[in-house]
Order: sequence, then structure tokens, then C-alpha cells
Amino acid sequence: MNSRLHALQKQLGHEAILIEDPTNLLYLTGLSLSRGMLALTKDDAALFVDGRYFAIAERNSPCPVRLFRESDCEVLLEWLLGRNVKVLTFDSTVTSYDRFTSLNRGMPDIQLMADKAPLLRHRAVKDAAEITALKKAQNLTYRGFQHVEKQLREGVSEEEMAFEFEMFVRKHGASGLSFESIVAFGENTAYPHHRAGKTKLMKDQTVLIDVGAIVDQYHGDMTRVVFFGKPDPTIEKWLHWTQSAQKKAMAAVRAGVLVKELDLIARSVFKEHGVEEKFTHGLGHGIGLETHEFPSLKATGADRDVKLAAGMLITIEPGLYQPGLGGVRWEDMVLVLEDGYEKLG
Amino acid sequence: MNSRLHALQKQLGHEAILIEDPTNLLYLTGLSLSRGMLALTKDDAALFVDGRYFAIAERNSPCPVRLFRESDCEVLLEWLLGRNVKVLTFDSTVTSYDRFTSLNRGMPDIQLMADKAPLLRHRAVKDAAEITALKKAQNLTYRGFQHVEKQLREGVSEEEMAFEFEMFVRKHGASGLSFESIVAFGENTAYPHHRAGKTKLMKDQTVLIDVGAIVDQYHGDMTRVVFFGKPDPTIEKWLHWTQSAQKKAMAAVRAGVLVKELDLIARSVFKEHGVEEKFTHGLGHGIGLETHEFPSLKATGADRDVKLAAGMLITIEPGLYQPGLGGVRWEDMVLVLEDGYEKLG
Repeated sequence: MNSRLHALQKQLGHEAILIEDPTNLLYLTGLSLSRGMLALTKDDAALFVDGRYFAIAERNSPCPVRLFRESDCEVLLEWLLGRNVKVLTFDSTVTSYDRFTSLNRGMPDIQLMADKAPLLRHRAVKDAAEITALKKAQNLTYRGFQHVEKQLREGVSEEEMAFEFEMFVRKHGASGLSFESIVAFGENTAYPHHRAGKTKLMKDQTVLIDVGAIVDQYHGDMTRVVFFGKPDPTIEKWLHWTQSAQKKAMAAVRAGVLVKELDLIARSVFKEHGVEEKFTHGLGHGIGLETHEFPSLKATGADRDVKLAAGMLITIEPGLYQPGLGGVRWEDMVLVLEDGYEKLG
Repeated sequence: MNSRLHALQKQLGHEAILIEDPTNLLYLTGLSLSRGMLALTKDDAALFVDGRYFAIAERNSPCPVRLFRESDCEVLLEWLLGRNVKVLTFDSTVTSYDRFTSLNRGMPDIQLMADKAPLLRHRAVKDAAEITALKKAQNLTYRGFQHVEKQLREGVSEEEMAFEFEMFVRKHGASGLSFESIVAFGENTAYPHHRAGKTKLMKDQTVLIDVGAIVDQYHGDMTRVVFFGKPDPTIEKWLHWTQSAQKKAMAAVRAGVLVKELDLIARSVFKEHGVEEKFTHGLGHGIGLETHEFPSLKATGADRDVKLAAGMLITIEPGLYQPGLGGVRWEDMVLVLEDGYEKLG
């Protein structure tokens, strides 16, 4: 069994835990399963998969594998009863109402206990292999951005630039994109979740590129703003303030700092310039096997009182937006260290 | 409002329905939302989205849009009470246990009623625009396969061939792949869910290619077997039987036929040759905005008594597998007609 399974098992008391989320299964077993269940007690573990995955799982799983048929709880129940399990924790953010009902009906002697995303905190602190993968992903993301930057020319569309990025990173080892690339020209930059469309680049427009490559299952994520020709004076000012907000927030990153402190540092920079209300999203987020992981770096969010810990990987991405005019965002990924940070790229 | 919303509304009585699955939201509104809620009554509809999507949704939604903050039920509740809704149906296969609990707690005056995938049957019968998109997707999938077939050469890896397919279809208009391409060489063909890996092609090996391109949001899906050099006599025999099973099952496709009848026709061909137990999966599945849609064409499955209807799009993909030796599968997509079928490609 591997160390990630052990770390989770160490936190278990007499209850068992059921893991169903595919990303959590990948994290704990190294296996890519579109469906499967991992049951853990303090001392034992079993992976339940259907016929599609049985042969592959048997060869590669870090724990014993059992064949499981959909909506048949007996195999799971037998395993749990054999280990004297009376309480089974499940991930209530992932398990559907239907699945809960069927587990509850099929295993009347087991008490089901809802737990919200029990692996979020485990996955937030990265181990050495994960940090290596994230560095590779972010390095390739930067190279992809640099490639795209060189291709910017009058008349090219957002879509074409997004495609250029994708082709470049795929040819250089990415298995896919962290998310649908955001390439925005002109006023489209005002929408943080704009998708690359048919808009064509014109002289003196602002270009916003928010992209990420996946390498060895881990996600890169970066945002840059480029002026194609003469900058708009307002947008240019905003970009300076945004870069300054990012720099100040980043300088405060170290183990023990509260998530909300970072966000408030960035906000205070914007406040000085009277544009605080144009910063319409959080400062950043954890990143790893998924683009958006725990914690969310937002002073008013649910994770506001989370303390950064060494080994966390987070994005720092302040931005300013005004519909009808445009927007800017500047984003990098940093590794939290005991006494500071390391910028990836 | 569009006709898909209307078709769903026509089936509602006094209860309202809540749609949260992103694919169902895309189907009903045309909008790609990673998160959102569509509430429908017999006569009214509203789309609830968060700040990220509000501007885009307001411009393009077929029904009024309301701003919604996560885990805040008030806006939804107010809308429902304003329409005198007392019972709200939700998709229990999609809604998480957590989400159910929070809706239930936040709206004590509304009775929540679980419904399993209420849009499955709606989405199974395709309209003209969907059929056009599926034809485009499958046509490009065929062209991508033909491109890959020409690239087969000694020493090339499964991964490289999968990448060739992806690059080809992306360059020719695909937005992505229906699923991770299956390219299997030699014994790897014995695993229906093998993924393209580092295995290199050697002379006289069997090659199995199962791929799909997405065009205009709709999924293509096809499988072919190619002999690279001299065929293995057993595998060659299996391929003949598999093609014959596909042909016979396909010939029986028409409106009114039961799903299980098709599967049993294919199985009876294999039974004649004493290899029935090597056909380890169902005959096929519905396909559309997702690769696997309702119904599943399996004689022993939950959909076995479903009647085919004109406008359904299904795959027909019999196969034979033996670990340690190899396998074959042959797959096409067909449109169900009143009195027959049309093969796509």
C-alpha cells in the first residue's frame, strides 16, 4: 500500500470510509477509473471495480481488488461486515442522492455518515512527485503562452490562438488542457470566464490569455495580458495595479498565513486606487489534479480562515474588469514554503 | 422559449422540475455552464446562474435569468413560491446528497421528489439539428480513422496513433474527442477498455481502433480492426463472425423493435459458432451530447424492454475477446427510422 492510503487510514477511527470520486481514486490508487469504489478501514483497504477495469486494476492497484456489479451492494457489504465496520463515511459532495439511497437500502446494518469532501485537505499539501509534475505542467504552460504570444497578428481569431496553444502543448507532452483556454480580445477581456470565440484581433487591442496544460495528470494555470499595439491608458494603469497587487500578495505567502490575509493584501492595493469593486473574484485557488482545488483564496469565502501550509500549491491571480471597456488579470502558481514561496514556471 | 423546453414542460403537471446536470442544461438552453439550475413549471421557466455566467446567460438564454449564489436557496425558493409550486422534482442521479440536504433545509415548504435522470428519454430521440451534428461528427471520425490507418507502420506506438487521430480531427473541426481513444496492438486488443499506451506495433499484429470526434457538441464513435500483415487465423474468424453479427443486428433496426431483440440477434450468431461467452459487453448504446446515452442495448440490462423509436441514434458494436490472445470489435452508428435504419459515416 502506498503512503497516501496510509495517511488517510491514520485519520480513521472505528469508522470506515468510502471513496468514489474518480480524481480521489486516481490520487489514492494511481488508477484512472471512470467509476469505482475504494473502501478503507484503519488497517485494511479494498478497491471495487466493474468488469471493464478488473484486469487492469488487479495488475496495478496498491490494495486488493474485488469485482463489483453496479447497484449490487453485497460485495461491499460483505467486506465491511468482515471487518466489523458499523459506520461508513461517504463523500456527500460527490455521492448522488440515488447512490446514497441505494447504499442505505442495500446495507441496513451499516450507518452511513455524510462527510464533505474528506480528501480536500489531504490533497492540498503536495508531495515531491506532485510538485515535480506541477512544475512540468506550469513550465510547459509558459512555453505554450510564449508560443502563442509570437503568433498574435491582426485578423487572427481568439479560437485560432487557443488552438495554437493546445497544439503546442500537446506536441510537447501535455495530455490535455487544464480547462478550456480563455483567449479574449478587446472588450471580451472584461469577462473573466470568456471563452475563445470568433472575434478577430485588431490593432491597439488588449489581449488576455488564461491557459493551462496537463502534464502527468497535474494542471498548470497562468494568465497574461498583452497589448497588441498601443495600450488603452486605463487598462494599462489597471495592469500595473494588478501586477503590484499580485506582487504584494505573493510576497506575503508563507506557511501559517491565513487565506483571507492574502486576498485582503491584494484588495488593499486596489482600494488605494479606488477600483476595489472591479476585482470581482477571489485571489486564487489550490491546484493539482484539478484546476480548482482547496483552498479558495477569498476573504469572504468558506476557506477564509484556512492557514497556508508548506507544500500547498496555489494560484495568485488578481484582476480588474469593467463590462464595455475591458479587463486584466495576472496569474502565476506558487509553492508555499515554511518561510516564503517559490514561483513556478 | 425553445421547443426542447416546451416538450419537457408539456409533461409536467402541478409539480416543477429542477435541472442541474450541465449536459441537460446545454441540451435545454444551448448554454455551456459548468454549474447552473434551470427551474421549469408547466408555464414558466427560469435559469439560475452565478456571477461568472450571468452576462453570457442573459444574452443567450431562451428563458429569464436570475443571479444565484452558491448554497443560497432564497432566489430559487422565491421563484417557486411565486408560481405556487409545492412539489419540486430533481434528478437524483445527478444531485449530490449534500445538495439535496441543502435544498431540503433551505426550502422547508417545498416537497422534493427524486426522479431518475428525467431527461434520458427526451434526449434519446434526436431532432434534425442533432442528427446533422451527429452525421458531421461521425463523418469526421471515419476520416480520422482512415488517416490513422495510413500511418500504421512497424515500431509506431499506440499513443502516437491516438495522437495522430486527435490532431487530425482537431485540425478538421472537432472541438475534442468523444472519449480517450482506444488504440490496441496485439494482445492488448483483448481488453475492451484498453487505453493507448507505449506498446509498439510489430508485424502480423491485430490493430483495434475505437475512436470518436466531437463536432458541434455531438459525439462520434466507431471501432475498426485492421490486420497489420498476416492475420491470426482465430482472430480473423472472430472478425468475420463479429461483422456478420453486426450486419444481422443492424438489419433488424427499425422503430418498435425491443433493445434486447437486437442484442439477442448478435448473440445468436456467436452462439452458432460456440463463442457466445467471449462477447462480454452489450451490443451498443444511445449516443448524442454524451458518448453513452440511453438506451443501453443489452439483453440483460435495465433498458432491455425499451422500444426503439424513429430518431434514436445508437451504436451497434459486437465484439469477441480472450485475454492472452486478443480481441475484435466492429462498431458503427445508426439512425433509427420508422421502417429501417440509416448508417452514419
